[in-house]
Amino acid sequence: MEEQVETIGSAFVNHYYHLFDNDRSSLAGLYQPSSMLTFEGQKILGVDDISGKLNNLPFEQCKHVVSTIDTQPSSFTGGILIFVSGSLQLGGEDHPLRFSQMFHLIPALQGGLFVHNDIFRLNYG
Amino acid sequence: MEEQVETIGSAFVNHYYHLFDNDRSSLAGLYQPSSMLTFEGQKILGVDDISGKLNNLPFEQCKHVVSTIDTQPSSFTGGILIFVSGSLQLGGEDHPLRFSQMFHLIPALQGGLFVHNDIFRLNYG
Repeated sequence: MEEQVETIGSAFVNHYYHLFDNDRSSLAGLYQPSSMLTFEGQKILGVDDISGKLNNLPFEQCKHVVSTIDTQPSSFTGGILIFVSGSLQLGGEDHPLRFSQMFHLIPALQGGLFVHNDIFRLNYG
Repeated sequence: MEEQVETIGSAFVNHYYHLFDNDRSSLAGLYQPSSMLTFEGQKILGVDDISGKLNNLPFEQCKHVVSTIDTQPSSFTGGILIFVSGSLQLGGEDHPLRFSQMFHLIPALQGGLFVHNDIFRLNYG
């Protein structure tokens, strides 16, 4: 079980940032109406507003490089908590930004997992 | 409800780091046998081993300064996800270390909340 949680966590993280960097509009498929995103302190509820936020960030080109992935089963049956640290290179910028992000994935009614909770912060420092 | 989650989250964070910096052995009271800690990638299960880890970290004096606290209700009834960024000043060291930490609090059978999930990472970079 624990190994499975780690495998799912890593696969999700790779998939998520691949979509973010190459086909950002398709991230909407990972969220649902009950999803929550807190992006640099701004709270956004539901797949529509979350998708709107992600698709209208003030940069087009970006590349996430993941440094660490930590996963744990959440108390919710089948739920997985994922904690990521990494760097984000924006197009036209010299230096990458460090970030931390956490996801809580829970089972969807139609099968598979969706992002119920998502908290993103840049690390200044 | 949302305001309540934020209030509980902030109160917990202040309480947690106050205990960590002033009476570290009493942190054990915030965990239970089902608790999980991932500390810099090391997985530790259950209140006894978590308490052992925290009480045997290779520093005595420390002070956490919190920069940001983000909270969301988790999908688990009454559960709260808390994402913290801040800095950690160790006794005898010149420069503080940046850290990120997430907690998942869930209701305890005996009332109140306990730390079901805890993931800690220093931010290098």
